[in-house]
Amino acid sequence: MKYNKTENKLKFDYNNMTAAFIGERGFTDKELHSMNQAAKAAFDKVSEGRGKGWMGWTELPYNQSEIVEDILATAKDIRKNFDNFVVLGIGGSALGPIAVYQALCHLHHNELPKKVRKAPKFYVEDNIDPERMNALFDIIDPAKTMFNVITKSGATSETMSQYLIVTDILKEKLGDNYKNNVIATTSAKSGNLIKIAKAEGFKTFYIPDGVGGRFSELCPVGLLPAAVLGIDIKGMLKGAEFMDKTCNKSVPAKNPALMAAVLQYLAMKKGCNVTVMMPYADSLKYMADWYCQLWGESLGKAVDLDGNRVNAGQTPVKSLGVTDQHSQVQLYTEGPYDKVVTFIAVESFRSELLIPDGAEEYPDVNFLCGATMGKLLNTEREATEYALMKAGRLNNTIILPEVNAFTIGQLLYFYELQTAYEGALLNIDTYNQPGVEEGKNATYAMFDRKGYENKKAELEARPVKSAKYII
Amino acid sequence: MKYNKTENKLKFDYNNMTAAFIGERGFTDKELHSMNQAAKAAFDKVSEGRGKGWMGWTELPYNQSEIVEDILATAKDIRKNFDNFVVLGIGGSALGPIAVYQALCHLHHNELPKKVRKAPKFYVEDNIDPERMNALFDIIDPAKTMFNVITKSGATSETMSQYLIVTDILKEKLGDNYKNNVIATTSAKSGNLIKIAKAEGFKTFYIPDGVGGRFSELCPVGLLPAAVLGIDIKGMLKGAEFMDKTCNKSVPAKNPALMAAVLQYLAMKKGCNVTVMMPYADSLKYMADWYCQLWGESLGKAVDLDGNRVNAGQTPVKSLGVTDQHSQVQLYTEGPYDKVVTFIAVESFRSELLIPDGAEEYPDVNFLCGATMGKLLNTEREATEYALMKAGRLNNTIILPEVNAFTIGQLLYFYELQTAYEGALLNIDTYNQPGVEEGKNATYAMFDRKGYENKKAELEARPVKSAKYII
Repeated sequence: MKYNKTENKLKFDYNNMTAAFIGERGFTDKELHSMNQAAKAAFDKVSEGRGKGWMGWTELPYNQSEIVEDILATAKDIRKNFDNFVVLGIGGSALGPIAVYQALCHLHHNELPKKVRKAPKFYVEDNIDPERMNALFDIIDPAKTMFNVITKSGATSETMSQYLIVTDILKEKLGDNYKNNVIATTSAKSGNLIKIAKAEGFKTFYIPDGVGGRFSELCPVGLLPAAVLGIDIKGMLKGAEFMDKTCNKSVPAKNPALMAAVLQYLAMKKGCNVTVMMPYADSLKYMADWYCQLWGESLGKAVDLDGNRVNAGQTPVKSLGVTDQHSQVQLYTEGPYDKVVTFIAVESFRSELLIPDGAEEYPDVNFLCGATMGKLLNTEREATEYALMKAGRLNNTIILPEVNAFTIGQLLYFYELQTAYEGALLNIDTYNQPGVEEGKNATYAMFDRKGYENKKAELEARPVKSAKYII
Repeated sequence: MKYNKTENKLKFDYNNMTAAFIGERGFTDKELHSMNQAAKAAFDKVSEGRGKGWMGWTELPYNQSEIVEDILATAKDIRKNFDNFVVLGIGGSALGPIAVYQALCHLHHNELPKKVRKAPKFYVEDNIDPERMNALFDIIDPAKTMFNVITKSGATSETMSQYLIVTDILKEKLGDNYKNNVIATTSAKSGNLIKIAKAEGFKTFYIPDGVGGRFSELCPVGLLPAAVLGIDIKGMLKGAEFMDKTCNKSVPAKNPALMAAVLQYLAMKKGCNVTVMMPYADSLKYMADWYCQLWGESLGKAVDLDGNRVNAGQTPVKSLGVTDQHSQVQLYTEGPYDKVVTFIAVESFRSELLIPDGAEEYPDVNFLCGATMGKLLNTEREATEYALMKAGRLNNTIILPEVNAFTIGQLLYFYELQTAYEGALLNIDTYNQPGVEEGKNATYAMFDRKGYENKKAELEARPVKSAKYII
């Protein structure tokens, strides 16, 4: 599909981050300008790193034309032959697919009649809760289900457990043909899953070497589920490319992702250790979950690149407008001055509803009659933005003209770039996650895995919990 | 249903909040004891306030026997005659019903065949996104749907807009009989909705005077939806009563909710402005959303009861184990020392799954074989708890023997009590929400509502956004 670039361009509005709008806690032009040199250095670092090391994600809008055709052909086949499509994956293998599904499919996709839905029902199993997994088996016929196992290493305990459970059931039902119900998305070169896939004969898609989990939505990890759902994946990639081009300047005032990174950097320096993403659209609800991993796991680091202990990071919080006006906005306007709120606005909804007459006797309801729901929603967003401004609270807004594949591609790439810039500004390793090793190793030890005898001994020597502190 | 109190008692484990376990950032017995006097004062204040002012919620386990019978009879009728049950409500009128539905119904309730489901399909419309509301109408037949409009004041713009849209459709389809498809849950005495309900002849349930939105789950706001879903509401109330009795001591070491409040208070004083709720069970996922309102809106206050500017509050963050180990735990273990993590553990799942053999050649997967999913999940929880402890991070655990109506009742009441104690410790008004007025009034002004001319003038005089800051 073709998208008009002018009509579909994302905008980033940071008026309410400035001192002119919110007063003493806002930033002056002088403060913003003072960041230009550091911003340029961050921009250069990201530009020079493109496509190298863990920065393979920058090239995904450009280097996948063959893969996209394979994905589309595979998706077509799945749409024809399967009732359900189930992703087995966790973290970066789940959050992108969920976010894009919510954004670009019908909000009750799975409950639509098959004819209207046109695509298989869609489920992402990103936990190992037995009640949830059993609940899934209560509503799907595994024989009519395509399972997409996504793990780069093939060693993700959660996903591989699910894989074993699912294939055990499939083999029982389908015998050798079971392999037609499994697609593996994994590393082409290393790990268990590629070996298993080759041995079993699964259809396979590859996660490129330089693409880490949380930056993987625009590779087959996200593209296959999206294509199965009928989402215009070429449009998504075009949107990402357009955002990449939009952000090709080293001056923050001309590069929205770089400006967004600079503003968060300044806010962190002033003590804002919390950042809220608050989309005003149900379709964007799970973009916040995807962003929470990207931001939290990329920037939450104990040491910087020079080995200094920094304990960097900012806690991302997911919120939803207008819903959380009735839950979190009290805190945002009156609580500590410790956060930046980023609204995501949608200018035009894909469908509308008129609030009809019928409350003539009730003036505190009647004023709504004749307006559309979309107007009420966007008015409340503006009013909340105004209330935060008046309370002197840092806030900014990303504006999507509409939610479609092209704007979603832009949004994803915008946040990936912002995160990369932010990591460079903070001088940390944006792409590792050493802090999760301890928990993994402790799990292995508790399971008596070979090679973890020392960890097991360490665990056995840990302080015994006191019954006095369990009440 | 009868629940064995010993077997179903919630436990609160705060070993990892102590210096003995996490080192310098943990609390010593001396620090804990130093809070005893303040804790007693908070306990006394909450005890003395019971049932008065906005503390009507404390009595809900005791004063609803007649109402419960009415709810059960109504629910029985709805279960027999309707295909869908839709809550129109937002904030406190939505978060409790959603949390309890997720906890105590099948995790794919709406997708089960009618015979298995036994209850109507269930939807909570807690936003005014037109795409979402239209999506709902695509999958339900309004004529076969019971709409439960919940708003105490009858002036909640979002809910009343939905009410107007829904009743317009119902009248068109059903004529005068439309009134049989609407139940109003609202104030008995004041507001529009009670007037409308009386004029139209709707079945009505009342929200007691002293029960505010975020403390309303155990009144008809939450009990009717739960009963329609077949949930044992008497068991929930019994659980709440049991927690109330468990917390009848003024010494924190003997009162889990009071100890939890004291610990958070001490953590706040040491700079922990973030609190994470991380249940390790999909069934408890939306308990975190319910808690986020309760904690955020109750404690996020600009001034204390003596009129001092305090900007109190702590940002609640919702997380899910094990899922968010692959998203947020990196930040929790290595980022700033600014948070308390509260795990919610479930000892025994209502169903299990065995991880079968099939990975003999892959030692980094094979060690899982033969274990249950529940064991893997709980082992990972313990391992994550250990990793946080080792990294010197404050964390504690609420342990549910199982998820059932009785333990959920305990959990709800535990958090309500903890919040009440916390507000008393902080010397703030736990029950108001003045910070949301500004946004509401600005919305009214933007809609040209009569009486808001001054606000309109104020808005028109606000600084004009600079195009330079929109990129």
